[in-house]
Amino acid sequence: MKTTHDGIEQLRDDLRKFAADRNWQQFHSPKNLAMALSVEAAELLELFLWKSETASIVLEDSEKSRVREELADVLLYLVRLADQLDVDLVASANHKLKINADKYPVERSFGSSKKYTDL
Amino acid sequence: MKTTHDGIEQLRDDLRKFAADRNWQQFHSPKNLAMALSVEAAELLELFLWKSETASIVLEDSEKSRVREELADVLLYLVRLADQLDVDLVASANHKLKINADKYPVERSFGSSKKYTDL
Amino acid sequence: MKTTHDGIEQLRDDLRKFAADRNWQQFHSPKNLAMALSVEAAELLELFLWKSETASIVLEDSEKSRVREELADVLLYLVRLADQLDVDLVASANHKLKINADKYPVERSFGSSKKYTDL
Amino acid sequence: MKTTHDGIEQLRDDLRKFAADRNWQQFHSPKNLAMALSVEAAELLELFLWKSETASIVLEDSEKSRVREELADVLLYLVRLADQLDVDLVASANHKLKINADKYPVERSFGSSKKYTDL
Repeated sequence: MKTTHDGIEQLRDDLRKFAADRNWQQFHSPKNLAMALSVEAAELLELFLWKSETASIVLEDSEKSRVREELADVLLYLVRLADQLDVDLVASANHKLKINADKYPVERSFGSSKKYTDL
Repeated sequence: MKTTHDGIEQLRDDLRKFAADRNWQQFHSPKNLAMALSVEAAELLELFLWKSETASIVLEDSEKSRVREELADVLLYLVRLADQLDVDLVASANHKLKINADKYPVERSFGSSKKYTDL
Repeated sequence: MKTTHDGIEQLRDDLRKFAADRNWQQFHSPKNLAMALSVEAAELLELFLWKSETASIVLEDSEKSRVREELADVLLYLVRLADQLDVDLVASANHKLKINADKYPVERSFGSSKKYTDL
Repeated sequence: MKTTHDGIEQLRDDLRKFAADRNWQQFHSPKNLAMALSVEAAELLELFLWKSETASIVLEDSEKSRVREELADVLLYLVRLADQLDVDLVASANHKLKINADKYPVERSFGSSKKYTDL
C-alpha cells in the first residue's frame, strides 16, 4: 500500500505551481525545456572538465556542493519536461532498463564498454 | 509513514545491480557518467530540432515513443551519477527549488523569462 | 596560388603555442577537448534559451557580444581538437557538404525539415 | 596580398547556396542552428564516451572516419550560425585568443587546469 506521495510526483506538482505562479507556462514548450535540460547537463559536465576519471570521484566540498546543485537542475527540468509531455518518468525508466537488459546480455557485455550494435 | 520503496531508490538499486552484473563499475566514473548524461540530453534535444515550439507540444505516436525512451535514458544516467557521488537527487531538487523561489520572487519574475541576474 | 596563411591554420598554430607555453598539452586529450567543445556549444545555446526563433535573430548589442565570444570559444576548441586528431577541418567540411548534397537532393528536400532517413 | 578565397568564407557561401536551393532559410534561425550545433557536438562527444583519455588519442580507422564527419558537422553549423548572426568567426576567435592570453598569464597558469577565476 502506497501511503507517501512519491518524490518525483511531488516535484512535478511543485514545479507546476512554480510556473503557474510566475506565468511561465508560456515559455515551457517541450522544445525550450529540452534546450534548458541540455544546458544544465553541460553545466554539470563542466564541473568534471580537465579532471581525470579518478579525480572526478573524490571532489572537494565546494565542488560537491556545485555538483549537487547541477544534478538538481537537471532533475527539475527533466521532471518539468516529462510533465509537459505527459510521460511517466519512472515507469519509462523501468521499461528502458528492461530493454537495456535485452540489448546487453550479461555474458556478452561483461567487462565490455562496447555499444550493443558492436557486441 | 513511508511504506513503499521510492521509485528513484528502486531505480538506483536496479542500476547498481545492472552494472555489477556486467562488471561495468570500472567505466562508471562521474566524469564518464556526466558525459553520457550530456549525450542523452542532446539525443532528446534532437527530437525537437527544426520543430516550432507549438509543434513540439503535439508529437506523433512514433515521436512520442522515442521521446519517452530518451527521457528514460537521461533519468537512468542521472540516477546512476547521483549514486556514484552519493547525492540524494530528490532532496537536492527540493532544496534547489527553494533557492529558485528566492532568486525568482513572483512579483519580479511574473511573465518574464529574464535570468535572475538581470531581474 | 595561395599566398596567405589560411585563418584556420593560423589559429591552429597559435593554439599550439598557447598550450605549449602553458604546459597544457597534458590536458588536451581528444576526450577532454570534445567535452570542452560540448560545454561551449551549450553556453552558446543558453544565449538563445527562452527566446522565440524570431527574437533569436535580432539581438541586443550586449547579447551580440556574448554570442560572438561563445562562437569563438567553439571554434577554438574545434580547431584544437581537430589538430590533436590530425584532421583537416575545412577539407572534411567540404567533403561532408558533398555527402549532404547526396543525402538531401533538392527536389525531395525542398522546403522540408525531415531527416534524410525520413525523406 | 590575399589571392585565395578563405576556406571558411567558401564554406559560408556554399552553405548559403545549399540552404537557398532547398528553401531551408526558414528553418535556420539562430536558435535552431545553436540547437543543431549542440546536437552535433554531443555526437562527437559520444565517440569518446567510455574511452580513457589515452585511448581517445589513438583511434581505429573506422572511428577516425566518424570523428572526421562529426567535426565537419560541427564546423558546418558553426559557420552557418555565424553567418546568420553576421559574425566574423576567425576574427572573433583571434580576439578571444588575446582575451584568453590575459586571463591565463603563462606564469600563473603553467601546468594548471584551474579556471582563471580560481588562479
